[in-house]
Amino acid sequence: MRGKQMVKESKVYQHGTLGMLVPGLFEGTMTVAELLKHGDWGIGTASGLDGEMIVLDHTPYLAQSSGEVRILNPDEKVPFATVHFEDIKNSFKAEDLTQKELESKILSDYPYKNVFFAVKITGKFSSVKTRVVEKQTRPYKTLLEVANEQAVFDANDLSGTVIGYFAPEMFQGMAAAGFHLHFLADDRSIGGHLLDFKVAEATVSLQPFTTIEQHMPLDNQEFLDKDLNISDMHEQIQKSEG
Amino acid sequence: MRGKQMVKESKVYQHGTLGMLVPGLFEGTMTVAELLKHGDWGIGTASGLDGEMIVLDHTPYLAQSSGEVRILNPDEKVPFATVHFEDIKNSFKAEDLTQKELESKILSDYPYKNVFFAVKITGKFSSVKTRVVEKQTRPYKTLLEVANEQAVFDANDLSGTVIGYFAPEMFQGMAAAGFHLHFLADDRSIGGHLLDFKVAEATVSLQPFTTIEQHMPLDNQEFLDKDLNISDMHEQIQKSEG
Repeated sequence: MRGKQMVKESKVYQHGTLGMLVPGLFEGTMTVAELLKHGDWGIGTASGLDGEMIVLDHTPYLAQSSGEVRILNPDEKVPFATVHFEDIKNSFKAEDLTQKELESKILSDYPYKNVFFAVKITGKFSSVKTRVVEKQTRPYKTLLEVANEQAVFDANDLSGTVIGYFAPEMFQGMAAAGFHLHFLADDRSIGGHLLDFKVAEATVSLQPFTTIEQHMPLDNQEFLDKDLNISDMHEQIQKSEG
Repeated sequence: MRGKQMVKESKVYQHGTLGMLVPGLFEGTMTVAELLKHGDWGIGTASGLDGEMIVLDHTPYLAQSSGEVRILNPDEKVPFATVHFEDIKNSFKAEDLTQKELESKILSDYPYKNVFFAVKITGKFSSVKTRVVEKQTRPYKTLLEVANEQAVFDANDLSGTVIGYFAPEMFQGMAAAGFHLHFLADDRSIGGHLLDFKVAEATVSLQPFTTIEQHMPLDNQEFLDKDLNISDMHEQIQKSEG
């Protein structure tokens, strides 16, 4: 890797920011149809924080707090979502690794600690633990208050897909710093934001991005008006997303 | 402004981040020619932190610590720069306003406190005070150490252009939160990063962005290797850029 080399340009697209969810900007501000023009793999949440979105190969699944997994309609809106078109740079086989072990392996084997990159893991998992936020109604609470009310699911010995991102510390606020991963079982029996998992046997794919395209809902008056200068925002994000 | 409205899409492009300068990543990683493909107004710095860049209508000026203002060559490189194509949304006349008064007026008169937007001010200034960083050689110091060695210039009763950006708090690290403005006198007698100014009579133009396109130097090994998880990064940025 030493010396000058050509790097293929690759872009991640994000609508809204995690920081906007912190004080309760949960209303959807971009249609799923519009979002999918910018990427067909990714993660997000639905309007009102109605669950955890998992976009797999152009299909926008939504894991809801009831345990149901449904497909979002093109005209439904999202307040926060991150997507990309797949163009994998690195792949490797993983066996019998905990989430912590796998994340450490990625950061020690690849030069991506300062890079915004996508992670996809497909295969067999010996255990999976997810959380799903519960749909909120107005007046909206803060993200931290909602995080304390989430539904938690777990399952053993199943096949599925992990999709999500690693963001360097510098992007905390815009995104969640560190790994932010969602999961969907092949049989849709369980999905959501990953709290923990163990890989039995799977393929791990990485896609580093040269460009982060951050789109903001300038047509949303509530966003324009909101006080987003929250002194302990980083702490609230860590508590909510950790 | 109430209710749903169409918002024109407008993009700001940034190569590198302010956070990367904090630990001393000063080497240029994108040519000026490539940068100008993404915008023809903006600000930045040159390789080695060799001054303050002011891009006015496709001309990339560089104010250097000697007091000289020169035009960058297309093949010179920049480590950090922010540019956009001009598409002004709001304009107003300003008279006899200090920098603080003008910045307060912008944020109280326009709904942009949560928006990344460009500011251009053209006209007559009763006073201007700029600072210009000094060219660094390897081994590079930190940004904070360099900030203590900057050259300071001032002038009274002159014509010129202010160009720069406002970034919401959420983007601190990627950019400098708040206003980050550079200046160039019409006769090129003074330029640099603005520490203070007073408008005599000028036109202020604002351009809010729906999209922030952040480009990273993934072909630069020093960037990939650097420890960027600096616990007091926000504090160091405030001290360096304030």
